[in-house]
Amino acid sequence: MKALRQEALEELGAGIILANTYHLYLRPGHELIRKLGGLHQFMAWNRAILTDSGGYQVFSLAELRKMTDEGVKFRSHLDGSEHLLTPEKAAEIQLALGSDIAMVLDECIETPAPREAAEAAMRRTTAWARRARNYFLQQQERAGADLAQWQFGIVQGATFADLRRESARQLVEMNFPGYAVGGLAVGEPHEVTCEMAAEATSELPVEKPRYLMGVGRPEQLADYVARGIDMMDCVLPTRAARHACLYTSEGRVLIKNSRYIEDQGPIDANCSCSVCKRYTRAYLRHLFAAGEITAAILASHHNVHFYLDIMRQIREAITFGQLTKFATELHARYDAKPA
Amino acid sequence: MKALRQEALEELGAGIILANTYHLYLRPGHELIRKLGGLHQFMAWNRAILTDSGGYQVFSLAELRKMTDEGVKFRSHLDGSEHLLTPEKAAEIQLALGSDIAMVLDECIETPAPREAAEAAMRRTTAWARRARNYFLQQQERAGADLAQWQFGIVQGATFADLRRESARQLVEMNFPGYAVGGLAVGEPHEVTCEMAAEATSELPVEKPRYLMGVGRPEQLADYVARGIDMMDCVLPTRAARHACLYTSEGRVLIKNSRYIEDQGPIDANCSCSVCKRYTRAYLRHLFAAGEITAAILASHHNVHFYLDIMRQIREAITFGQLTKFATELHARYDAKPA
Repeated sequence: MKALRQEALEELGAGIILANTYHLYLRPGHELIRKLGGLHQFMAWNRAILTDSGGYQVFSLAELRKMTDEGVKFRSHLDGSEHLLTPEKAAEIQLALGSDIAMVLDECIETPAPREAAEAAMRRTTAWARRARNYFLQQQERAGADLAQWQFGIVQGATFADLRRESARQLVEMNFPGYAVGGLAVGEPHEVTCEMAAEATSELPVEKPRYLMGVGRPEQLADYVARGIDMMDCVLPTRAARHACLYTSEGRVLIKNSRYIEDQGPIDANCSCSVCKRYTRAYLRHLFAAGEITAAILASHHNVHFYLDIMRQIREAITFGQLTKFATELHARYDAKPA
Repeated sequence: MKALRQEALEELGAGIILANTYHLYLRPGHELIRKLGGLHQFMAWNRAILTDSGGYQVFSLAELRKMTDEGVKFRSHLDGSEHLLTPEKAAEIQLALGSDIAMVLDECIETPAPREAAEAAMRRTTAWARRARNYFLQQQERAGADLAQWQFGIVQGATFADLRRESARQLVEMNFPGYAVGGLAVGEPHEVTCEMAAEATSELPVEKPRYLMGVGRPEQLADYVARGIDMMDCVLPTRAARHACLYTSEGRVLIKNSRYIEDQGPIDANCSCSVCKRYTRAYLRHLFAAGEITAAILASHHNVHFYLDIMRQIREAITFGQLTKFATELHARYDAKPA
């Protein structure tokens, strides 16, 4: 969580954070983190941690990737060193990190994908999930109650409904404690993302967590929840914050804009975060104009609060049976606003 | 205060901060800050603020400077625009900012300076101080009780004891509510800085604050206090922090060093700051290695705590009549440590 101390995340009420296995594997190394007592102890964070498999960053950051059924060979983007990431290795690294939720290695493909490629990637993902599950269960048997990690399978199948359902059914047979839906929100229309999420969750047990990976924009969150999604992760709130884009109940505020030079109001008059209680838009704008680190700190704090608050509102809407209405409201609030 | 929210400064017990007049004059502009209710309101900081005159940054950052008896002409380092800073203008800008303590414009010269140049700069500084004082008193007469700012004169005179004393005496005649000693710690040996501070304070009223500008290293702070100095300012704690240099009771810790890779101790076992209570050296090292903003946040927090704690220890030492002993201890603690 860039630009936020753990104390800030606690103040914000964050119950879980995501750590990138690829980055931690390369630097400082999972064996070092294991030696230092695991990721919770290393980073002084007592709440939940989810680790990804490392696969996504291999596809987006690493060089000279080579995919085989065994796994994916790549060169580190830091020093060019060669590595092989297999389903077993991804599970092993995450066990060393000691995260609460670990993801299986999956194959991400670019979209739009032809059906043949989508099916091949889905089948490889399923085969890898089986290997990861077997590896994990062996380790768990050895370690006993000490190994409290939850391993999640990942549904693939690109934009093909039947592939998504088949992928989900095969994973459910492996009896994961939770399931993710991967390879979405990578360029396809929002309606397609929603449809594929719905296809996947229709086959996933409702009593287990269902996690849509890498989403999303504020106005989309309730749509996913309405399709049965319980968990999401996204860089958007913090990345947008560092680029001076603030989320508010009135839409996005591009705070560097000169219209905010004399604006003595808070970022969001309807926000209860500690930044909105104290600082003005004019001050935030100045900090960004001057390139101050505190601009990133304050903006990240607000945006994360905003996202967590939307999730609180979604839970409340569910309680009162108003989820669909709330989802429509969110779109009305944001769709027409400047990008 | 880079990388620290105002909340952090309050937690650290900072009673006063320094704001740079040059930077604020150019961006966002002193008239804007005046319009928005002054600097306290603009930056949401209710404790004390000291503003410098802007002169130092004109000398160190601006382009095409031209000094005359009238003032200093310069071009903005941001957009090349031309400006004239006079003693009256520097006072006017700081009145607009609404700081609690404002500094008169002085002439800083490079050291070592020949006596002739030092004397000329000192005489110009004194003449400017008189103009600044007159301007300020006129404004105060107009504004009445509303103008609660304290204006400080600045002693110059390079490394010449008699010039320092003469400068101080002339300023005292102008009856400032506080006095600064400027143009020191710019390359001369520490002993000379101390000697010049002592020469200046010997002529300055003990019941008014005496401020040594732009110092210093941790082990030097008590030396200055022993020479009658009450206030200091320095970028060192935060700048060093951003460059991974941490101050501790055992000396400086260059946290990027590989010896800290597995170090599960706090930055400083004798430190009570919130960073040392929670995070390890290994984690801090990792954050710096990964180029994370949180590295700057945590390191700045600790270093500022360290500096404020030295000042607390100095006050305690004074209470018990142990200041000289404490100053010697500080040198023993730090002088032999890696730079």
